[in-house]
Amino acid sequence: MMTPNWILQRASLTPDRIAISWEEQQWTFREMAERSMDIAKKMRGTGLQEGNRVALLTTGGPETVFLIHGGLLAGFELVMLNSRLTAAELAYQIEDSEAVAVFTDDSLLDRAPDSTPVSRLLCGKAEDFKPAELWHEDRTLTIMYTSGTTGFPKGVRQTAGNHLSSAAASAFNMGLQDGDVWLCAMPLFHISGFSILSRSLIYGMTVRLQSKFDAEASAREIAEGSVTTMSAVSAQLVRVLDILEGRKLRADGRFRQILAGGGPVPSPYIRRAEALGIQILQTYGMTETSSQTATLAAEDALRKTGSSGKPLFFNRIRIEGAEKPGDEGEILISGPHVTPGYVGRFSDSPAQVDGWLHTGDIGKLDDEGFLYVLDRRSDLIISGGENIYPAEIEQVLVGHPDVAEAGVAGVEDKHWGHVPAAFVVVRKAIAAEELEAFCRERLAPYKVPKYYRFVEELPRNASNKLLRRELRAAFEIEK
Amino acid sequence: MMTPNWILQRASLTPDRIAISWEEQQWTFREMAERSMDIAKKMRGTGLQEGNRVALLTTGGPETVFLIHGGLLAGFELVMLNSRLTAAELAYQIEDSEAVAVFTDDSLLDRAPDSTPVSRLLCGKAEDFKPAELWHEDRTLTIMYTSGTTGFPKGVRQTAGNHLSSAAASAFNMGLQDGDVWLCAMPLFHISGFSILSRSLIYGMTVRLQSKFDAEASAREIAEGSVTTMSAVSAQLVRVLDILEGRKLRADGRFRQILAGGGPVPSPYIRRAEALGIQILQTYGMTETSSQTATLAAEDALRKTGSSGKPLFFNRIRIEGAEKPGDEGEILISGPHVTPGYVGRFSDSPAQVDGWLHTGDIGKLDDEGFLYVLDRRSDLIISGGENIYPAEIEQVLVGHPDVAEAGVAGVEDKHWGHVPAAFVVVRKAIAAEELEAFCRERLAPYKVPKYYRFVEELPRNASNKLLRRELRAAFEIEK
Repeated sequence: MMTPNWILQRASLTPDRIAISWEEQQWTFREMAERSMDIAKKMRGTGLQEGNRVALLTTGGPETVFLIHGGLLAGFELVMLNSRLTAAELAYQIEDSEAVAVFTDDSLLDRAPDSTPVSRLLCGKAEDFKPAELWHEDRTLTIMYTSGTTGFPKGVRQTAGNHLSSAAASAFNMGLQDGDVWLCAMPLFHISGFSILSRSLIYGMTVRLQSKFDAEASAREIAEGSVTTMSAVSAQLVRVLDILEGRKLRADGRFRQILAGGGPVPSPYIRRAEALGIQILQTYGMTETSSQTATLAAEDALRKTGSSGKPLFFNRIRIEGAEKPGDEGEILISGPHVTPGYVGRFSDSPAQVDGWLHTGDIGKLDDEGFLYVLDRRSDLIISGGENIYPAEIEQVLVGHPDVAEAGVAGVEDKHWGHVPAAFVVVRKAIAAEELEAFCRERLAPYKVPKYYRFVEELPRNASNKLLRRELRAAFEIEK
Repeated sequence: MMTPNWILQRASLTPDRIAISWEEQQWTFREMAERSMDIAKKMRGTGLQEGNRVALLTTGGPETVFLIHGGLLAGFELVMLNSRLTAAELAYQIEDSEAVAVFTDDSLLDRAPDSTPVSRLLCGKAEDFKPAELWHEDRTLTIMYTSGTTGFPKGVRQTAGNHLSSAAASAFNMGLQDGDVWLCAMPLFHISGFSILSRSLIYGMTVRLQSKFDAEASAREIAEGSVTTMSAVSAQLVRVLDILEGRKLRADGRFRQILAGGGPVPSPYIRRAEALGIQILQTYGMTETSSQTATLAAEDALRKTGSSGKPLFFNRIRIEGAEKPGDEGEILISGPHVTPGYVGRFSDSPAQVDGWLHTGDIGKLDDEGFLYVLDRRSDLIISGGENIYPAEIEQVLVGHPDVAEAGVAGVEDKHWGHVPAAFVVVRKAIAAEELEAFCRERLAPYKVPKYYRFVEELPRNASNKLLRRELRAAFEIEK
């Protein structure tokens, strides 16, 4: 299936509607398309061609939106780099994805590796070109890295069809009204943020943008009704609730719902939100499913506490090996929102087996078909909304000459939800501070373990697979 | 792209939501799926297989919905017969489509031709089978006949992808809210009615069904707010407005909009509707585009009187040969909602040329991209919401031994909007009553010309093409 170029089509259909609002400024869909087209011409002025793969390293805010849309208009595949990564992590993703250029803000210039041509836009000359009128559903729009279980981050391809079916199914589930404004405080290089931009283009909906999450501003806008929907993780949600309660404010009647991802929302939060007039829609999704794959309706939030709801309209979910409701197993996902595959070193690993994505997450479906996610990728740590994969940290730890074995698990943290804790078997005595410094050189700050435990051996199962759940349990007991 | 079987998926996602409400009865999505599955088993019990093409001849109402969904679950391609057609017209469509069976209500049994196996459902034995879990977007769900300009009706294939992209684009344009109820007073064998059933399954939306259009009931439900959206043609719309005004009623705040098809809505109607709190969304579509292709936003209804608005999100419209805004020409349409082609005698005629459907309609785009339809298929007559193709009636008239030539054009009618008028060149004198009786035997009642004019010659252009516009003009002058 082909769709018209989303950016140009939207600018043609509703040119005067507000696309992006940020601080005191706003841009209509026509203005956004014009700004993005200017950038696209400068991008093409560097000699790059349609179909090239380029990386974006950005700080967030409206300029990032224009840069992303510029890249899409230029016809590129966009490798979305997380600006919180270290130079070494960025270098891996740029090299693995074979991106031929990196476009970046001046403020991030020193982070981009020397080995890749780095283009800052303003110095480029512009090339006049005609952007594609149609986008094929199989066209890769974005590539986002996710770590998986191997320790080597995998570049996930997200096609136009992936993003489109995700946006459509989301609208069928959450509804869509004239005047909807989605508050985006999520990073735009994440699927949680990027999917808001897709929906904006496809629905003709305004995005209220925060360069980074601002709990005060979010609470104020919810109370004023200047936004109608918001995406948040639990840790952000609770900060917004605290502020509203503290100021004795409620959500304005125009505000409808918070789409809450990144793990189940505790039921006390849901009750507090309801008391403030806020519906909480809990959702389960991942980079490989271009955002939501299942979402729990607000009306079921308390009846089905801990559930991520039912699949969205196009999607199917099953539990591997389950024979009856309640049986636990790996969560398998099928639908047009599932990535067709990876790039780089994992380009030969199939993303789907017989049409099903094997998520690595463990879950169950109850007798009404509601999904409960019991363990994300067995071991995924979600810390302040960022995904942290233990295997990646373990890989760094065992790179230290004095470390024999390492296991990492997420442990609860008041501020971040969860943080990584390291369990290490050493060859000779070593200080936790030294390990921490070692990690800090090689990992983004949020991935650096907060706790270090020195142990005799790591818990493993019969087939020698590390049992990270037991690490977690041991940590809790010890505390 | 594959989608989950819409009927089963919807029953699984929102089993307890109301799918169909009719008179005092209602059915949830689960109940509807169960009823439809029972019918599907009886259909398969006749020996028919998945992929067979069968025709449905029905009277409307909930049983028709279950029959349609039963046919879809059974895996058939459904030829949707218009129950207002004569036995001869039905026979043509059944034969041309090569339908292997006709499923019908008892009340219509005498209308089905003898030559085709006719199955009444209640006498059949049931066969247990497992319906397809997935529907491919290329699967033909429905075949609807449209007459085109040749006099031979053409069977238009409408795929799952056609209906799906139409429903999605409609939601992006019209919005979608919890508690939406779409009032369906359109025949279910027409795309105007069937598309409401598709949207219901895809959105999880309730349909309030009328077996046939009931202006009194429609006005009452709009005033009570028991429905939120309605599809109507101008002739229906004005009757609803008359009743509301006569009773000094207004639309309830929950009622949002009337989607008005079948030709432009005169601006006085739009003003009257606005005064009653009703938004009018004027739309342009056809059987070949599985419902709407362009829709005029309510906010532009008066500013752009006479326009059908802008394309829906997935669609593109251009005017053949137009070099600048305002140039008139044939309307060409492109998008995933456009039929891949015809069945039967037209199966070799391409529906699209280089991805564009040539509608035969004449129109223009203004400088903001709003579509104005100037002439539908040059000559299409829309009478009480039914499409009437002059060529089909002319074909019948020239079949009379005393008729040498015939031309048919639509003329204004207070009750029906337009009715066909016949212009005939005869070989020897003949009474209008005889011609009318001749037509009545061969055409559905609504297609029988209301006026007969005997003329010396028909207006034709240089290439001898009949100029039906001049017939129309002559009739108006003569009146």
